[in-house]
Amino acid sequence: MAHAVSPLAPKTVPDMPAVPGVRFATAAAGIKYKGRTDVLLVALDEGTEVAGVFTTSKCPSAPVDWCRRSLAQGRARAVLVNSGNANAFTGAKGVATVEATAAGAGAFVGCDPAEIFLASTGVIGEPLDAAKIVAVLPEAAARLADGPWIEAAKAIMTTDTFPKVATAKARIGDTEVVLCGIAKGAGMIAPDMATMLSFVFTDAAIAAPVLQGLLSAAVVDSFNAVTVDGDTSTSDTLLLFATGKSGAPRIDDPADPRLGAFRAALDAVTLDLARQVARDGEGARKFVEVTVEGAVSKASARRIAMSVANSPLVKTAVAGEDANWGRIVMAVGKAGEPADRDRLAIWFGETRVAVDGARDPDYSEAAASAHMQGDHIRIRIALGLGEGRDTTYTCDLTKEYVAINGDYRS
Amino acid sequence: MAHAVSPLAPKTVPDMPAVPGVRFATAAAGIKYKGRTDVLLVALDEGTEVAGVFTTSKCPSAPVDWCRRSLAQGRARAVLVNSGNANAFTGAKGVATVEATAAGAGAFVGCDPAEIFLASTGVIGEPLDAAKIVAVLPEAAARLADGPWIEAAKAIMTTDTFPKVATAKARIGDTEVVLCGIAKGAGMIAPDMATMLSFVFTDAAIAAPVLQGLLSAAVVDSFNAVTVDGDTSTSDTLLLFATGKSGAPRIDDPADPRLGAFRAALDAVTLDLARQVARDGEGARKFVEVTVEGAVSKASARRIAMSVANSPLVKTAVAGEDANWGRIVMAVGKAGEPADRDRLAIWFGETRVAVDGARDPDYSEAAASAHMQGDHIRIRIALGLGEGRDTTYTCDLTKEYVAINGDYRS
Repeated sequence: MAHAVSPLAPKTVPDMPAVPGVRFATAAAGIKYKGRTDVLLVALDEGTEVAGVFTTSKCPSAPVDWCRRSLAQGRARAVLVNSGNANAFTGAKGVATVEATAAGAGAFVGCDPAEIFLASTGVIGEPLDAAKIVAVLPEAAARLADGPWIEAAKAIMTTDTFPKVATAKARIGDTEVVLCGIAKGAGMIAPDMATMLSFVFTDAAIAAPVLQGLLSAAVVDSFNAVTVDGDTSTSDTLLLFATGKSGAPRIDDPADPRLGAFRAALDAVTLDLARQVARDGEGARKFVEVTVEGAVSKASARRIAMSVANSPLVKTAVAGEDANWGRIVMAVGKAGEPADRDRLAIWFGETRVAVDGARDPDYSEAAASAHMQGDHIRIRIALGLGEGRDTTYTCDLTKEYVAINGDYRS
Repeated sequence: MAHAVSPLAPKTVPDMPAVPGVRFATAAAGIKYKGRTDVLLVALDEGTEVAGVFTTSKCPSAPVDWCRRSLAQGRARAVLVNSGNANAFTGAKGVATVEATAAGAGAFVGCDPAEIFLASTGVIGEPLDAAKIVAVLPEAAARLADGPWIEAAKAIMTTDTFPKVATAKARIGDTEVVLCGIAKGAGMIAPDMATMLSFVFTDAAIAAPVLQGLLSAAVVDSFNAVTVDGDTSTSDTLLLFATGKSGAPRIDDPADPRLGAFRAALDAVTLDLARQVARDGEGARKFVEVTVEGAVSKASARRIAMSVANSPLVKTAVAGEDANWGRIVMAVGKAGEPADRDRLAIWFGETRVAVDGARDPDYSEAAASAHMQGDHIRIRIALGLGEGRDTTYTCDLTKEYVAINGDYRS
């Protein structure tokens, strides 16, 4: 089960400030793992508003169903997350677990269970015992604090090899607000939604519908631009909570110009977390950035970039440090999007390897190979058809991916 | 480069009869491989009619473009195939190679170059020297014979670990006709088209448009039902040739009832070859059959079955002999097709592991695990929504797949 920390893990961890209105604690409930925390309880001050984006799976987990329903009322008082068991495809038992857990947490916080947001990650199809989670709540509730965030990120890990945190600041009017986010996710990452679980907290005061618009826009080029294996979890959940404790003016109009800096900060935090997820792809040794330009539209560029990023043949070539642009052509061709073979150009790093539908006559295999030996691979594809542009993020496909997923019932 | 023969290779090779009107020879042109044949020349008697199905890639190889154009006139006098170089994404040089090769072969056979069908498989993006192929034609043409088919199948192999042949007989009216087919393909196999290259020959007399209808129908549940890695080649080509030398009555009406047995024989040959392709999936240790039933339509069942068959998490679980039905739920959910989590049932072999949206209470993990230890894995998914049913074929995803594709510039 224990895997060495990804060589692509960030070298430094940012200073994560407290977020006024947010306190949390972690606990070891022994759901599956031994000797580590597996429950995260986050208490949110009264008045906290919430937005969420969830898996597009037709078979979502019971907690996802629960959060979708709760989101309608726009208020949140707590988030309760467990790792080790996804409570997915658990039928009526799974629904009962969700209700019992929310009721237990609601009793502690003193709120309606609908204001408790739940997320579970881990094995699918095994019953999850609510009693194990509820049992640790009194002790956890007694230890609520405004840090350290890294412990919150650790408690929600499954096959992750490092905890993922990100932070940013922004001004709304004259007041500074903070954003702190955590994420977990390593395999089973694909767009719609990318990460299995991510939670972002801010002390800004933003009305839930506005918050939802900001979050839905932020995922497009962050979590939805990341793919590890093209698989989509039943549990993918991203929640954004705004406590309003900063004293900044409350924003209830999505067109309010004072949102500009906050929007940029939210985009930066979600992109940072999403890229960390790709960097922790199971067995990953190389971080891969695929940029498509000159497509007929952004949507077309995205589909082509995803076709490349999800191609097992491209991902194994990257693992083998092989500047195999023939496989890029293959992946562009199979995307089914407008592409003219004879206008295609392809770069690895700064080296153009193909142009006008054939090998670049000046192509230096040595330069391309040198780029492939690094741990940040940039693949650029120019279609020459229009203005559509997109970037996606993935990792290489290694023997370790197969070993991890062949040996672990996740 | 040399890999051990797949443990899933057929234990016996069928007796492959001669097909009247078809003669062939193989040669070693040294295109890429040393010490083996890499060119196949098949000469077809005058009057041979032809049908074809090709890759849906937007970046098809030069030979695919050539065949598509030639197909319009419906007649064929020869097929010339090389392995080692796909002549794909080779720009104007690639077109010149195709024209020079067809002209060279046409001169030998004494026909219009448009009646020469070409196929190339191997590395993408490297120029292919027509002279190397044309140089072996005189010697090959002098050795044309009606067998042995296994040598034809060997000459077109790339990463294949065994040659693929299949045969069947059928009656048209009172006359027996034969069908003989060969195929190559191991990685980069996905629907539309499945195999990289396959050629089927018969001595039936069938008008080209009727032949095309039969072939297009035959691929649906054979080559298009096979996936190894979800990638699609730039070169996928399936051609069906009918020499008319059997003396059977010529069929020129697709509704002719005398076609029934021939249709069944063609379906059997294409399914046999397609399954052999899945059995030779790069690094494959297990053959996997995914059946979806109770979907809202056959098309919906196909998309769900393909989502399961292409899922890296499902394929690695099979490699690990893990009866991980949670990953099946995940793959069903991500297909985006109508599915009701709470009606879903899943079997591994004869063991029902999940029913009514939860683990089957009577589920024997031992029985499911015993099935997973075999080399023919049957996954059955019942949706309980309608009458749509489909079966797809794939193989497991092993460390060897990564090794083969990380080390080999295919």
